Amino acid sequence: MNAFPAGRAALFALIRARQSFLCIGLDPDPEQLPSGIPPTPQGMEQFLLDIIEATAPYAVAFKPNFAFFEAWGPEGMAVLQRVVKAIPPGWLVIGDAKRGDIGHTAERYAHAVFQTYGCHAITVSPYMGLDTLAPFLAIEGRWTIALALTSNPGSSDFQRATLDDGGPLWEKVLATCALAGHPDQLMFVVGATHPQDFKRVRQLVPHHFLLVPGFGAQQGSLDEVVHYGFNDQCGLLANVSRGILYASSGKDYAEAAAQVARRYQQDMARLMAEYGIAGPII
Amino acid sequence: MNAFPAGRAALFALIRARQSFLCIGLDPDPEQLPSGIPPTPQGMEQFLLDIIEATAPYAVAFKPNFAFFEAWGPEGMAVLQRVVKAIPPGWLVIGDAKRGDIGHTAERYAHAVFQTYGCHAITVSPYMGLDTLAPFLAIEGRWTIALALTSNPGSSDFQRATLDDGGPLWEKVLATCALAGHPDQLMFVVGATHPQDFKRVRQLVPHHFLLVPGFGAQQGSLDEVVHYGFNDQCGLLANVSRGILYASSGKDYAEAAAQVARRYQQDMARLMAEYGIAGPII
Repeated sequence: MNAFPAGRAALFALIRARQSFLCIGLDPDPEQLPSGIPPTPQGMEQFLLDIIEATAPYAVAFKPNFAFFEAWGPEGMAVLQRVVKAIPPGWLVIGDAKRGDIGHTAERYAHAVFQTYGCHAITVSPYMGLDTLAPFLAIEGRWTIALALTSNPGSSDFQRATLDDGGPLWEKVLATCALAGHPDQLMFVVGATHPQDFKRVRQLVPHHFLLVPGFGAQQGSLDEVVHYGFNDQCGLLANVSRGILYASSGKDYAEAAAQVARRYQQDMARLMAEYGIAGPII
Repeated sequence: MNAFPAGRAALFALIRARQSFLCIGLDPDPEQLPSGIPPTPQGMEQFLLDIIEATAPYAVAFKPNFAFFEAWGPEGMAVLQRVVKAIPPGWLVIGDAKRGDIGHTAERYAHAVFQTYGCHAITVSPYMGLDTLAPFLAIEGRWTIALALTSNPGSSDFQRATLDDGGPLWEKVLATCALAGHPDQLMFVVGATHPQDFKRVRQLVPHHFLLVPGFGAQQGSLDEVVHYGFNDQCGLLANVSRGILYASSGKDYAEAAAQVARRYQQDMARLMAEYGIAGPII
């Protein structure tokens, strides 16, 4: 298993070194694979290994989405294990599993994602309360990433429900979870689709890293998210999945993915310079 | 894969035939296995097959908890497949996965739990909104079971947060999801630990089945839950996991599990008679 150094300082050092805070979501959808890649576990594995090799220079993190491996049964999970092992040291591996359970069950999910599958981080759904986070936060040196405000239309159903104090539920989730998890161990998912919300997010959690989906296919603006979301240690991981993975449906999928990833990286380098956080590695 | 007939009427017919609404949670915790059962995938498989065979006469449903299989990697998932296949026709198989994601990801989770692993039902976490339920509800003849009010202490963190209309979040979750899912396809998780809440639950969702954890180890009262929770088609699946699985730590674990399951079944038969829902199978 690839070790990855714990805490924000190490992640920020990596972000500076690579001039990128790009996370690439590994969502190998059998219906979207490029032509020539068979929709099989073997096809998925080859596709992902090619994507990882081509895009790694422009990213700091990869985020395998467990659903796309689970659907193939035990064979798919074996592919997941090999894909995570193939990610070289120096890239954060986020298990996008959105697990949400308590006690012994959560402990076993932590074991699965951190040990069995070798991820450095896991996404977690907080609906059941802080009990859900505790067993993950108990694992030293790994990141727990709690859903706060997601980028899908349905995020308005409950996350934006107004509480009796006048604020939306997601703010309570953010503030409550932040008390339970140090910024060196806990991140939050905040979608890019409503950049103005990042202002409030940063009032509530100035120091926590945010994993931000919703770029590319979902049309979030990187410049706007950065404007409200950056902190002095960057504090953002911007995730792009389909926009990079399926940049081309032809045999040039890996080069096409690398080109898109490189454009994101260049935008990120520009923004880091503009906001004065691109300085020498500390 | 075992077919299971869709809808409430079929489930209620089964409940009447077996005079039981017991669901047995299959949580094979390696630290709690009886003596003589090695904490390995093979040990877990043998243990579960013995438990299923011994307890099936007293139950209508089995609920494998995905975490305990995932932790063992691909080999554990192969055990899960075999265990589900070993459950005979006429028992509802609930995949306790608490998945909570959207779009293509949720579709792949549905494929995994319903197709690849052959479950008839899945537990789902609603934090991301109705988007999370739709891909599961789109699968005809399968049950989606949304978390509403869980039995853990942390359920008070967010589920009981008071909204601006004066009600708790869990009521909004229940009422909103109920509009999206017919009672023949959607159930809710409501914990046994606060039986008085079932009165309000039944005002909001008179017709939906409820999957009720929190008996046994968590001390919920069956009589109280039934008092507020029964509807004219029973409307309840009472889940017991550890209280049955680990009834004995010796070699007699299967008989001990059967004895506890039988006691629950007898209580359930008594309550069904008391409330007048035990009549001849329709």
